Amino acid sequence: MKTLEDVGEVGIVKWLIETFPTESPDIILGNGHDAAVVSIPDKVALKTDTLVVSEMLSGVGYSDVGWKAIVACISDLAAIGAKPLFCTLSFSSPRSLRFSRFKQIFMGVKEALTYCKTRFVGGDLSESHDIVITVNAAGSAPNPVPRTGGKPGDYIAVSRPFGLEPLGLRHLLGKITLDENLAKLSTSSFLRPVPEVDYGQRLASLAGVHACTDSSDSLSISLSNMLGGKLDAHLIRLPAHPSIEGLGPGVVEDLVLNGGEEYALVYAYDPRYDRALVKSLSKIRRSRMVIGRLSEGRGRIFVRTPAGEKIVIPAGWRQFQSR
Amino acid sequence: MKTLEDVGEVGIVKWLIETFPTESPDIILGNGHDAAVVSIPDKVALKTDTLVVSEMLSGVGYSDVGWKAIVACISDLAAIGAKPLFCTLSFSSPRSLRFSRFKQIFMGVKEALTYCKTRFVGGDLSESHDIVITVNAAGSAPNPVPRTGGKPGDYIAVSRPFGLEPLGLRHLLGKITLDENLAKLSTSSFLRPVPEVDYGQRLASLAGVHACTDSSDSLSISLSNMLGGKLDAHLIRLPAHPSIEGLGPGVVEDLVLNGGEEYALVYAYDPRYDRALVKSLSKIRRSRMVIGRLSEGRGRIFVRTPAGEKIVIPAGWRQFQSR
Repeated sequence: MKTLEDVGEVGIVKWLIETFPTESPDIILGNGHDAAVVSIPDKVALKTDTLVVSEMLSGVGYSDVGWKAIVACISDLAAIGAKPLFCTLSFSSPRSLRFSRFKQIFMGVKEALTYCKTRFVGGDLSESHDIVITVNAAGSAPNPVPRTGGKPGDYIAVSRPFGLEPLGLRHLLGKITLDENLAKLSTSSFLRPVPEVDYGQRLASLAGVHACTDSSDSLSISLSNMLGGKLDAHLIRLPAHPSIEGLGPGVVEDLVLNGGEEYALVYAYDPRYDRALVKSLSKIRRSRMVIGRLSEGRGRIFVRTPAGEKIVIPAGWRQFQSR
Repeated sequence: MKTLEDVGEVGIVKWLIETFPTESPDIILGNGHDAAVVSIPDKVALKTDTLVVSEMLSGVGYSDVGWKAIVACISDLAAIGAKPLFCTLSFSSPRSLRFSRFKQIFMGVKEALTYCKTRFVGGDLSESHDIVITVNAAGSAPNPVPRTGGKPGDYIAVSRPFGLEPLGLRHLLGKITLDENLAKLSTSSFLRPVPEVDYGQRLASLAGVHACTDSSDSLSISLSNMLGGKLDAHLIRLPAHPSIEGLGPGVVEDLVLNGGEEYALVYAYDPRYDRALVKSLSKIRRSRMVIGRLSEGRGRIFVRTPAGEKIVIPAGWRQFQSR
């Protein structure tokens, strides 16, 4: 079994250039030059996102790792309403990594890039103890949507229901036992999340959409980020995925609010634009799911319960902290 | 002594946003949104470059690491003649890293970005065993210079002499003993290399410049890349830095051809443009150092010696290979 050391940098780069051809009228310099040069109409959106794999979880394939690295980055472009166009990628790993696994990772990268209509235009290889994949996406952003532009009275909505993806992760970690169907569904949602590229661009094209963010760290963290300490969120419902409703209210609430890994969009818009929004989203066979409203405030999130509103402490994925 | 775990992601991000303010008319969305949005005139140059620090070499400061991560990336934009404008950065490290060291790294980043007139517009934090810094630079490239555009008859030139930077590295590794002055000079050249941003743009503005690359992996590898298997290089001289000439011809030749770490430019141009080139470079008080000529061929590098031409086997920095 050949390792990266056996194949060597020159051989690896050769495989990458063959796997990711860069001939296109809008790619002026592609792979094989010191830097890439591309045409990007309008304002330029830039995002970098890193996936570190210190240990492969049982049930996760190497191609899933490549898919996820791309989706995590592109999802942030989707959140500001940009159209992703190009990406570069830095890959670091031990030299003992099997070349077949390296190729699987990059086949996942290729699948995700094809799904997102984004072209690979360059990369960098390094050695490290973990597998570290940094994806840098660039796109066109004629009408970028900020994260903190919400206004009092705005509806808070999400692009799709929550909870399946973190359930899949908990299942893979052995923290919860599920029936076979739900195990399969949640695991595949976790392993192959889908970024809201078209949805985000629809939102950005409407002036009434004031704020948007993706939910990869968790719904409560996304909301908290969106509030920016200057607004409060009043949730009238939790956007739970129908498949998880049988898990019991405590588990569901935790998964939906604090689970993360969803890459769904969380956004705020002027209710007067509701009809225009529904119409625009119907063209991509999607809809909005209103979950609450913004008010003036100081960054608090309230959830309606039979006993009245209760406050939510944001929780989810934070770097550099014990879990 | 506080670690990244003590400060936490929220505290770290707060420090970063304060340290790298992003208010500027050409930054539409800066730090604090899901992605950055910027204005880039003309074609867009993109480059990603990763620095992995598995172990800190004695004599290397954390701010030097930050400086180098930026310079290594910006140097590649310089090589295609782009003007660097913006960068994003992914930073991974153990959570046990001292916050003071993290701040030193980013002060080095800031110094280098100021030197390169490049603005930080966003980043990402992750946990990993090594310190892994991926810098993604974006710039404007009205006249990009490819790596492999050289033509038979072109002069081969370099932007500055070679050998000091790799000598500094060898000194830090304890592989060579130097007198105090040379130790100081070579170490500082290695720790604080300078990218050829203005020089690269001067080259790109002249139609007679056909190919350019930076020399971070070594002069011989840079030349080999430039030849693309279709040209030969005939060197009439080695561009040795005057300070290293006392080290003996074998050491000098090895440092200059195979040392690497220089971030000087290696380029090919039509001799008829020599006068225009000299004139253009004089405006930034620089000159070209012609070291040889291209001919038709198959990727070989020849060096003139008293006994005739001898062939050079490209050597230098390759990833995933034992050293």
